[in-house]
Order: sequence, then C-alpha cells, then structure tokens
Amino acid sequence: MLEKVQVFAPASVANVGPGYDTFGFAIEELGDIITLTKRQDDMLKILPAEGADLPLEPENNVATVAIQSLLDHLGSEQGMDVHIKKLFKPGSGLGSSASSASGAAFAANILLGRPLKTPELLIHALEGEKLASGSIHADNVAPSLLGGFQVMRSYEPLDIFQVPTPDNLHVLIIRPDVEVKTSMAKGLIPKEMTVKNAREQWGNVGALIHAMHSADFELLGRSITDRIAEPYRKQLIPQYDEVKEEAMQLGSVGFNISGSGPSMFALFKDEKSARVCQKYVKEIYEKTNQEVMMHLSKINPNGCQVI
Amino acid sequence: MLEKVQVFAPASVANVGPGYDTFGFAIEELGDIITLTKRQDDMLKILPAEGADLPLEPENNVATVAIQSLLDHLGSEQGMDVHIKKLFKPGSGLGSSASSASGAAFAANILLGRPLKTPELLIHALEGEKLASGSIHADNVAPSLLGGFQVMRSYEPLDIFQVPTPDNLHVLIIRPDVEVKTSMAKGLIPKEMTVKNAREQWGNVGALIHAMHSADFELLGRSITDRIAEPYRKQLIPQYDEVKEEAMQLGSVGFNISGSGPSMFALFKDEKSARVCQKYVKEIYEKTNQEVMMHLSKINPNGCQVI
Repeated sequence: MLEKVQVFAPASVANVGPGYDTFGFAIEELGDIITLTKRQDDMLKILPAEGADLPLEPENNVATVAIQSLLDHLGSEQGMDVHIKKLFKPGSGLGSSASSASGAAFAANILLGRPLKTPELLIHALEGEKLASGSIHADNVAPSLLGGFQVMRSYEPLDIFQVPTPDNLHVLIIRPDVEVKTSMAKGLIPKEMTVKNAREQWGNVGALIHAMHSADFELLGRSITDRIAEPYRKQLIPQYDEVKEEAMQLGSVGFNISGSGPSMFALFKDEKSARVCQKYVKEIYEKTNQEVMMHLSKINPNGCQVI
Repeated sequence: MLEKVQVFAPASVANVGPGYDTFGFAIEELGDIITLTKRQDDMLKILPAEGADLPLEPENNVATVAIQSLLDHLGSEQGMDVHIKKLFKPGSGLGSSASSASGAAFAANILLGRPLKTPELLIHALEGEKLASGSIHADNVAPSLLGGFQVMRSYEPLDIFQVPTPDNLHVLIIRPDVEVKTSMAKGLIPKEMTVKNAREQWGNVGALIHAMHSADFELLGRSITDRIAEPYRKQLIPQYDEVKEEAMQLGSVGFNISGSGPSMFALFKDEKSARVCQKYVKEIYEKTNQEVMMHLSKINPNGCQVI
C-alpha cells in the first residue's frame, strides 16, 4: 500500500462572464501541491503550509474537512499528515480553497487505495470548499478536480457537465495585488434581478456554450458579458476598466472578473496577442506603482493529478 | 418578373423550458400558407383569410406591417394582394403572428426579386410580430423564418444563432381547446426574480444547448425545466399537471408550455413513444369532454419556403 502521495490541484477561473455560480475552467501551472503521508494513528495533522498561512486546526482547514468527509463516507479512521504548498495567493479569485479541497480529497482517495472514482469525490471536495464560501459552490471545485471547462446545471441535485474548449484558446490571468474576500464580494451581489437582465444573462450563457462547441471566437467574445457580478465587483479591482479596454483593443475575445476577483481573465485566440497584452497591462500598473501578477495559460484539460 | 408567390411559414415552439424569450424551434406541417399577388397600384390589400378571422386593415395585420417595413426599407411602392391561410389556430402558443409576419416578409422579398437575403428579413418580420406582442420577440420569428432551433443571444443588438438538433428528436404538440392571449400570459410573469432562480434557469439554458450539440437526451430532459413562466402560466392550461405527468411516465425526455400556451410540447427520442403518449393524452381530455388537437412532428430544419 502507498504510504505517501503528492498531487497537483489546478487553480480555476469561475463565472467566466455570464455563468455566475455556473461556469468554471481549470488553468495550468497555478494551483496547490498537496502531499499526504499515512500516519499510524487516526489523526489528521496539518503541517505548516508553504506559500500561505493556512489554518492548522483540521476543522478550520478546507483540505482536512474534505478528507474527513471522505473518511466518514468510507468509514475509515486512517490518519494522515497533510502538507499544502500554494503556488498562488489565496484571495485571488482563482479558487484557492477549491484547489486545496479538491487536491486533498483526490490525494486521500489515492492513499486509501482509490475506493471512489474521481467524479465521486466532488461532494467531499465541496464539503471542504463550503467552509470557505459558506455554501456549496462547485464552479471552482469541479474544474479543479476534473479539469476542463465545467458547467453546473444544478446544485440540488448536483448535476455538472463538461464542454469542449477550442485548442487555441489562451487565457491571460491578471492579478493586481489586493485581496478580495469571497464573502465580501458575495455580499455585493443583489438577491434579486430583473427578468430582463436575467434573460440577457442566459442568452449569453447559451451563446458561450454554443461558441465553445463550435469554436466560434466572435460569438464567444460577444457572450462574455455579465449583468450580475461585474458591475458591482469591478470597484474592488484597481484599474479594472482601463485594463479591460486595453485588453479588448489588443484583440482579447473576452474579458471579465475571475470568480470574486481581484484576478481578471482575458481570452485570446493566439498566444502572441496575449503576450502583447501582458506587456501593456504591466505598464498600466507600473504607472500607478502597483504590483501585478500575470500568468499565461491554456484551459487545462486535466484536473487533479499525481505528480 | 414573378407576379405571384406562395410560401409556407412554419409554426414554432418558443421558450422550450428554460429559454424564456430566448429559445424557439420550427415544427413541421403546421403553419401559414401565404400567397402574394402583385397589384398594378401601390395598395397592400388583405383578402379574407382562411382558417381564422384576421384584421383586414393593413396597419392592424402583422403580415402587411412586415411587408410595409420591407417596402419602406427598399423604397418600393409595389402593391400586393395578401392572402393568408392558417393551418392552425391563432392564440395557440405556436407563434401564429410570427408565422404570418415571417411568411409575409419572405414572400414579399421573393416577389420583389430577392433584394435581401433571408436572415436580413428578420428585422422586417419582427416589425410585424411586434404588432401582436407589443415588443420585439424573436423567439418565434427566427425559427419560423430560418428553421431549426434558434437562440436569441441578444435583442439589442439583435444577435441570434442556430444550434444543431438530434435527428431522432420527436415533438408531440398538445393543444387543448382554450385560447390564451399572449398579452395576458405575459402579464402573469413577474418583472423580477431571485438570483437563485435565475441561476437555475441559466444552468438549464447552458445544459440544453450542450445537450443539443451532444445529442444527450438524458441531459436534455433534465434541462427542460422553467422557473419563470411555467409556474404562472400552467393555471391557464386545462389538465396541465396530469398531462405532463402522463407524458413523463411514457418516456418524454422533456415537457413544457409552448410559448404562452395553451399548447404544450413533449419531446421523445422515438416516434413510437410519442404515438403511445398521444393516445393516452387523448383519453385524459376525453374523460373531461374537452377538445384537444395533437400534432406529431420533428424539429423542422427549414424555415419559410416557396411551395
């Protein structure tokens, strides 16, 4: 039996414009590296994390809550040492808690001899993620666990599916150096909306799915608009309008806030345009002496993987 | 030059569950037959219609309003005699005014020597349809004019696209003999909705588009639910819940109200199940001595056509 396992759980972009609480896709390279080691006792012990200060009490850490949910489901009392290395900052709007929860559930399942299939781990990862966001939100967890572009049809019952993504789609992640708490960002969103705005939103949701299936970049670009989160949340993001305008002028086929922000994503149909955009966005933040992290990626077809 | 033209403009199912004001598909055989004959003067003269009593004043008839919009656009003063034969009752929720408006614009364009391409006729057909519904609604007009399953991404600007439909999808139209005025049915819909319900709606909109692309009948069935119109409008439709339950038990993969009702649609993945359903639904209405019209169709790939 395996005594130790190390996995990579990718970061992810949720909402993706019109798909509030509905769309999410995995990205490359950014994510969590989670290492689990079997213990002789029944403790879940969290070792100090790398790259971020994470809670050390098992009941307060999304990773151990996810593992505990899996152990309870299996009737197992296997103890584990849990080490998390974060390759990106929590509070970025890139699904930090979802990466930890997905990676932890995925790794624990391997350490336990793979009793469950990966999609069956979703509910356990969601239990962990719930600790961070206060309710079940699968739009980061599903892509982090399963990879690709995932869509949540329904939460009760949980019903998700994956849509194909055009090969040449490039994603530029832009993260100005401010922290946005998901809870605060959620609080900005009204509880009601007009049917007129809701209709616009689902017109765009339908268009985005169709655009992915048919690799129609023009339609994709027109569909990435948002009536519900962007108007309220962009105020939390320094230079949002300026950066968006620059990206669109430089050929981005879709730009919006990643999850709760402050990260933004800009989609491009070729790598070269994305690199040009990266250069100009850097200049925008240099002018105002602000730090910015940027990361160029494709949509990651893989979710959690043993490394 | 052509002196006379006769076209068939199909009826259509709008909303299709979650796609309120967004989805619509054309059906076979039911529709309008519109005959236009050139006149020597500049009059648009409406001849008495067959199959329904329609307004004889050009400014009150959706067909002539659509033709007038096209003539104005082209700067033409060509007069025409307009004859409409309706193969289904207006007020059925099958896009009666959309069939008339689409067919009229399509036929007039042919009589004028085809100065516009068919998709360019959409705005003129919409002008006609607006007379009936009070505002621009393309979810019946687009499928009637262009055929297939059409999606309205946006109304301002008008932006529509067509999704593929599985070959073996069968549609049973069920129309109990009551009339529902679109204006009254529209009045039942609240102006606001919770973000929670709106999110469910767009989760299902996305799922339906994906299901059409991937011919996933199970997902299609799960996605045909509606939070906005069905709960309010079903009260106008005799035996709605009973008919829906029967259809679902007999293997329908999706059931809902067609447009404003009272027509309902039931989707099936084979013709045999649809025919069995037809038989049992007939019995439901026989028990209560109510008339019912039923029509078995596939999604019509064609919109308006010269006949």
